[in-house]
Amino acid sequence: MTSTLAYALPAPLDRDAWRRRFLDLRQATADLCQPLAAEDYVIQAIPEASPAKWHLAHTTWFFEHFLLRVYAAGYREFHPRFGFLFNSYYETIGTFFPRQQRGLLSRPTVDEVYRYRDYVDNALADLIDNLKPNLWPEFRARLELGLHHEQQHQELLLTDLLSLFALNPLRPAYCPDTAAVAGTVADEAPLCWLESPAGIREIGHSGAGFAFDNENPRHRVYLDDFRVGSRLATNGEYLAFMADRGYARPELWLSDGWRTCKEKNWNAPLYWEKIDAQWWQMTLAGMLPIDDSAPVCHVSYFEADAYARWAGKRLPTEAEWETAAERYPARGNLREAGNLRPVAAADSQFYGDVWEWTQSAYTAYPGYQPPVGALGEYNGKFMVSQQVLRGGSCATPQSHMRASYRNFFYPPDRWQFSGLRLADDGP
Amino acid sequence: MTSTLAYALPAPLDRDAWRRRFLDLRQATADLCQPLAAEDYVIQAIPEASPAKWHLAHTTWFFEHFLLRVYAAGYREFHPRFGFLFNSYYETIGTFFPRQQRGLLSRPTVDEVYRYRDYVDNALADLIDNLKPNLWPEFRARLELGLHHEQQHQELLLTDLLSLFALNPLRPAYCPDTAAVAGTVADEAPLCWLESPAGIREIGHSGAGFAFDNENPRHRVYLDDFRVGSRLATNGEYLAFMADRGYARPELWLSDGWRTCKEKNWNAPLYWEKIDAQWWQMTLAGMLPIDDSAPVCHVSYFEADAYARWAGKRLPTEAEWETAAERYPARGNLREAGNLRPVAAADSQFYGDVWEWTQSAYTAYPGYQPPVGALGEYNGKFMVSQQVLRGGSCATPQSHMRASYRNFFYPPDRWQFSGLRLADDGP
Amino acid sequence: MTSTLAYALPAPLDRDAWRRRFLDLRQATADLCQPLAAEDYVIQAIPEASPAKWHLAHTTWFFEHFLLRVYAAGYREFHPRFGFLFNSYYETIGTFFPRQQRGLLSRPTVDEVYRYRDYVDNALADLIDNLKPNLWPEFRARLELGLHHEQQHQELLLTDLLSLFALNPLRPAYCPDTAAVAGTVADEAPLCWLESPAGIREIGHSGAGFAFDNENPRHRVYLDDFRVGSRLATNGEYLAFMADRGYARPELWLSDGWRTCKEKNWNAPLYWEKIDAQWWQMTLAGMLPIDDSAPVCHVSYFEADAYARWAGKRLPTEAEWETAAERYPARGNLREAGNLRPVAAADSQFYGDVWEWTQSAYTAYPGYQPPVGALGEYNGKFMVSQQVLRGGSCATPQSHMRASYRNFFYPPDRWQFSGLRLADDGP
Amino acid sequence: MTSTLAYALPAPLDRDAWRRRFLDLRQATADLCQPLAAEDYVIQAIPEASPAKWHLAHTTWFFEHFLLRVYAAGYREFHPRFGFLFNSYYETIGTFFPRQQRGLLSRPTVDEVYRYRDYVDNALADLIDNLKPNLWPEFRARLELGLHHEQQHQELLLTDLLSLFALNPLRPAYCPDTAAVAGTVADEAPLCWLESPAGIREIGHSGAGFAFDNENPRHRVYLDDFRVGSRLATNGEYLAFMADRGYARPELWLSDGWRTCKEKNWNAPLYWEKIDAQWWQMTLAGMLPIDDSAPVCHVSYFEADAYARWAGKRLPTEAEWETAAERYPARGNLREAGNLRPVAAADSQFYGDVWEWTQSAYTAYPGYQPPVGALGEYNGKFMVSQQVLRGGSCATPQSHMRASYRNFFYPPDRWQFSGLRLADDGP
Repeated sequence: MTSTLAYALPAPLDRDAWRRRFLDLRQATADLCQPLAAEDYVIQAIPEASPAKWHLAHTTWFFEHFLLRVYAAGYREFHPRFGFLFNSYYETIGTFFPRQQRGLLSRPTVDEVYRYRDYVDNALADLIDNLKPNLWPEFRARLELGLHHEQQHQELLLTDLLSLFALNPLRPAYCPDTAAVAGTVADEAPLCWLESPAGIREIGHSGAGFAFDNENPRHRVYLDDFRVGSRLATNGEYLAFMADRGYARPELWLSDGWRTCKEKNWNAPLYWEKIDAQWWQMTLAGMLPIDDSAPVCHVSYFEADAYARWAGKRLPTEAEWETAAERYPARGNLREAGNLRPVAAADSQFYGDVWEWTQSAYTAYPGYQPPVGALGEYNGKFMVSQQVLRGGSCATPQSHMRASYRNFFYPPDRWQFSGLRLADDGP
Repeated sequence: MTSTLAYALPAPLDRDAWRRRFLDLRQATADLCQPLAAEDYVIQAIPEASPAKWHLAHTTWFFEHFLLRVYAAGYREFHPRFGFLFNSYYETIGTFFPRQQRGLLSRPTVDEVYRYRDYVDNALADLIDNLKPNLWPEFRARLELGLHHEQQHQELLLTDLLSLFALNPLRPAYCPDTAAVAGTVADEAPLCWLESPAGIREIGHSGAGFAFDNENPRHRVYLDDFRVGSRLATNGEYLAFMADRGYARPELWLSDGWRTCKEKNWNAPLYWEKIDAQWWQMTLAGMLPIDDSAPVCHVSYFEADAYARWAGKRLPTEAEWETAAERYPARGNLREAGNLRPVAAADSQFYGDVWEWTQSAYTAYPGYQPPVGALGEYNGKFMVSQQVLRGGSCATPQSHMRASYRNFFYPPDRWQFSGLRLADDGP
Repeated sequence: MTSTLAYALPAPLDRDAWRRRFLDLRQATADLCQPLAAEDYVIQAIPEASPAKWHLAHTTWFFEHFLLRVYAAGYREFHPRFGFLFNSYYETIGTFFPRQQRGLLSRPTVDEVYRYRDYVDNALADLIDNLKPNLWPEFRARLELGLHHEQQHQELLLTDLLSLFALNPLRPAYCPDTAAVAGTVADEAPLCWLESPAGIREIGHSGAGFAFDNENPRHRVYLDDFRVGSRLATNGEYLAFMADRGYARPELWLSDGWRTCKEKNWNAPLYWEKIDAQWWQMTLAGMLPIDDSAPVCHVSYFEADAYARWAGKRLPTEAEWETAAERYPARGNLREAGNLRPVAAADSQFYGDVWEWTQSAYTAYPGYQPPVGALGEYNGKFMVSQQVLRGGSCATPQSHMRASYRNFFYPPDRWQFSGLRLADDGP
Repeated sequence: MTSTLAYALPAPLDRDAWRRRFLDLRQATADLCQPLAAEDYVIQAIPEASPAKWHLAHTTWFFEHFLLRVYAAGYREFHPRFGFLFNSYYETIGTFFPRQQRGLLSRPTVDEVYRYRDYVDNALADLIDNLKPNLWPEFRARLELGLHHEQQHQELLLTDLLSLFALNPLRPAYCPDTAAVAGTVADEAPLCWLESPAGIREIGHSGAGFAFDNENPRHRVYLDDFRVGSRLATNGEYLAFMADRGYARPELWLSDGWRTCKEKNWNAPLYWEKIDAQWWQMTLAGMLPIDDSAPVCHVSYFEADAYARWAGKRLPTEAEWETAAERYPARGNLREAGNLRPVAAADSQFYGDVWEWTQSAYTAYPGYQPPVGALGEYNGKFMVSQQVLRGGSCATPQSHMRASYRNFFYPPDRWQFSGLRLADDGP
């Protein structure tokens, strides 16, 4: 949404720079809420989503709990019950308010939550300036984790607001559509194939920048010959799948997918609506007609997989994806582009537009070790029953993206900006 | 909050008086919302409740749909989708937004809803002044129905807010507790028995005042000898039932009640909480210690019935209740008293404090005819599987109450101000 | 199947007669199972039903628990766990196997259950002969209750088998259709109205014969003028309701009924199936074409009520029904007729054919007292949320029927032989 | 259970040998049912299981549908509705009876199902003898698939019977316990570590024997150093995990696992029961005290994973398992051993005793292609959300087992004979 969010990947920063980075990134979250009415902050539209107010408070609690409480001598919590209310899922810390009831809390009000943010931001800015040097390295690592955590919630805040506005019969728009102006691409780019020969590869995080624990350790994998598409699958291509009765042919679907499809009466991606023989899609800019050349978005793993089978292809594994993508700079239609929706390909689209479902289940890399303590719950405990997605979306901050980044959601999930790229075993 | 709400039962009113009555009563609804933050208007805390915002808009839609649309030539609806959003359950009018999703609508905002109210109130005030005389009688009847409908929602607004605040771990108070000051009664009043001999009685509405269709026609019933208690059952008495393992003895319970009790882990009335060996109750004034002499409140029919069986008594039928109550004036701890919670008996408590569960299933009186058209859905279609409650509560406007009034809820419902009075077959 | 089941209502019986009556009636239950394969005894096809094997064992347990255990000195239970397995719902006796899992028990086998029956029957026959005279009166009362209990389960055994065979795609027949031969009635009998003037009536059991506790005490009621139909509503009449879009018009339905109708996609009575533009119905004799002149059967209260509203009438109250019916002998198309399905009217049909839904909720008569002890759970604890049905069905033994008999089921229940008779307030 | 089940892996068989193999293996299924009463065949005790009768009929339908219908000119189906009733999940063939209702079918009876088996067996034996030679190769491949399919259902038949007998309060035994005699091992074998160095390995099926499509193609994988335990985890070790509050410490569990554990109140493996301070386990031989030295069995993936984390280890990947196991002959406590429960280690236990949960999600091998047509639904469509298990169990026929065999179940499943072996990254 705003160019002020962008920041270069840091050379070793001095404390002054860390303070500025911290305050800027926190402000960016508040900026994302600028279009909201108080009522918009409160609701949990679907069980997977959280209210905007909750995102604002939970990210604040993260800094309070994992930094201020530990490093700021004499720090006093803003409110004794906020730990209970805004702990997300850290079981080892204690009980917490049930996730599925987050939308039942009218209090604290939005104003109180912003006061909570100010209180914590001020205390943390002070702490950055005044922490004893011997504590700084560990503190700095947690601070950086907190910032990336905040960025994850910035994206979730947008996807969750879309889930809220999409089920309101008034179909409110979060923002005007600027992508139509910026992103006009006359035609769908042709689909080519990027080849990769068989051999031992390395995947996982390397280098000095930040990465989550689950991107480590970098390790070897053996890959056979493979190819991936030169761009994402488009709405136009997906409409051909639909026209070919894609949602009515069980042979195209995984068994769990077919059952889900029937139970939920899926016949198009999430947020699609047919009005007078024309397909529209609810977006953060309100209802827009389907753009054939834009990437298909808001499909589940089941739909991505069925589409690939229909196309005579398959989805890439995460190792294939990373091998193909790491040659490209982590640039694209990310949040700073301001589109907040996927647009037609101007490049290979490895980064931005939509998260790409991979064929890989989310599991530990060989030799993976979660951090000690409650922060060990951050990533490791979700390593079952979910699929890896790669590459970021139109709602992901650019500084948050890299080739080794592993996102993960359940196969039926559709409310994220999720799409796909085809792959095969080569010619 | 309140004394301005009271109005005497009207002698035939002139239009000027009707306009004032209409505007006063509409203002009274807004007054009830004065303590609320915008966030408090939005949430549906339990499936049976509705958001405050919805109550404000639905009652407005009622006037718009059943009066302005019919009688105001050239009237233009405030918003074309509000009929869909704010029709409650009138199936014959058309489809409506699902009841259980009322808490998922952040828009229209609270401000927009108040603008909707102003728009409709102005139009209706105009219409009262300018309607052609030949249309007045039918219009006036619908207007009066709309006002009583608004009063019903005034009470629901309070009970639904309590359900919202009660599940918030912060336990916010809707208002300060004034009952403690006003209603101090040193001891529990002794329980005596009001006797009534066998014979043919008449029950149902009579006279010129307003009544709902379901209170008609007045008709004969044959009653055997019976007695009803001289006051409501108290918290102190109910605590004795609890101490005697009332929630653990199936022989005291109806079969459906016992199953519900076990499934929901009931061990006390709704909103009760044991803190350090002392029972407290969440009220509109926040958490208060249990007052032994106040009427027990927020019990289901199942609990009321089990308590009565434990006491060696039974609940009265609605005919018994009405026969006993109609000798008393419809006065008591109603909303205008400003307590907003039941208090110790200063009188027979037939009116106010808590709605009294009766042993009578809600069904049609002999010869009952619902109105023609959509307004026929108002009461008649609910005449199965619910129990009749009588007498009004601390949240019922006084002008809304009368001996023949029939309220009805499902046997497991507890979020209303519901309690009980004992009865038996006489000495 | 059947003529051996009949027995005259007893003059005070000597012990010899009681023993014969007991053994005959027990044998009649086994006779009803004669068409069954072992596999048919095991399954609980719907949550409301029980396996045939369970009915055989539960009725046996009833005699064992309430008679042998109490009166037979030194009696040894057939199996120590059968009390746990075959207690139906007597909470005060102790825990019991969950009702909804009755179909998960392959053991005891059918053979073992018959051995259980023989064991108990022999012991009880002995006890009848040898009980001390001073214990006889109370014993005899319990014995008689046990026999009527057994008859209730004889009917349930048939309705539950129908539920089993009806959902099997092979549509097995329990018995050949003899009703077609016996019951041929050329045309639908004309519908007349039986009038009854206003006044005080008495309803409830009177006289020396057996009655359940819930039929007592006989008591006065005041009834306004009313009329009831001279016969049951027929399939032909119900088809006219269906043809007039009865299942698609919410204004005809109670609110709970309409929701149920939509949720369950009802568009015809239970067990109806449209095959090549002709309606058929699954019966105990297998699939049969709908007989227009036979009473409509397997409708819920909701459907009965909607049909009556469509017809411009209503359902009778149970007091009206009993007042009208008690002038007629308790004879009709009951089980001994051997039809096992409702047939066209040869008489007023107050008894037999189908249980008639009434507008009356099932509740206690004035002055009702349940028996002391576990037998008090027999009827009293069900007195909420159910509707009274009257008159017995084609599966009810004749000696089990009388004018004051009160059956009760939940409004959505359809698997019993349930239908309706119209009523109104008179001309 | 019976030595007659064993057969050597075939050298290229002549038709005569195929016919004998077919008939022997079909007879072996019937032999497994020898201890059953008719009632035991009917019930579906848990949604994941199927009735014994259904297994008998479904495997028969498989031969009828995929062989007789295709290759036997003029073949007439035994019953026109059996395809609907006994198709398991082949969506491309047409609709089928809902899986979760398989226990609601009393008909066809057990006798009819055995007649169905005889009819198909005779027809297929004829076909084996008389099929035209040019059709033989494809026919033979399908026949072999059908035989392995039958073996899979032989194991499921046993696990499903155990689920049935285990929830019956009478705890019936399927067979006497012979393992106690045969398998007595005084002490738990010490746990050693089998090391494997890093490098490129090959996994997947190779050679001439039968394998399912999902074991292909054999392909390269890169493995880091790893070690696996020299035997399975034992009950004694698992009891130490339980004693150390393993079921009460969220830090040991995956997030989905912890939620499942809490929702289902798990506190021990499935079928465990504590009686007077001693743990017992329901087995096919009835209730037996826990044998500390026998492998822990009936644990979910979640429990296996939590146990491994508690032990400071992890589960192996399927590539690690296969690499370690393929050096060992596929022998062990398989079904032919007759124990029908896991017993203390006499060897490395790679084969038999319990299926071993691996850390690997079930997905396609690189280059995997499912067969064309309905048989393509056999394995491929389940490749999401399930975990791979390896090595076979005490209920797996020996001729059915091999190093490359991939079994798969959902992470919460526990009714299979499932356990675990520890692994780590080496010293």
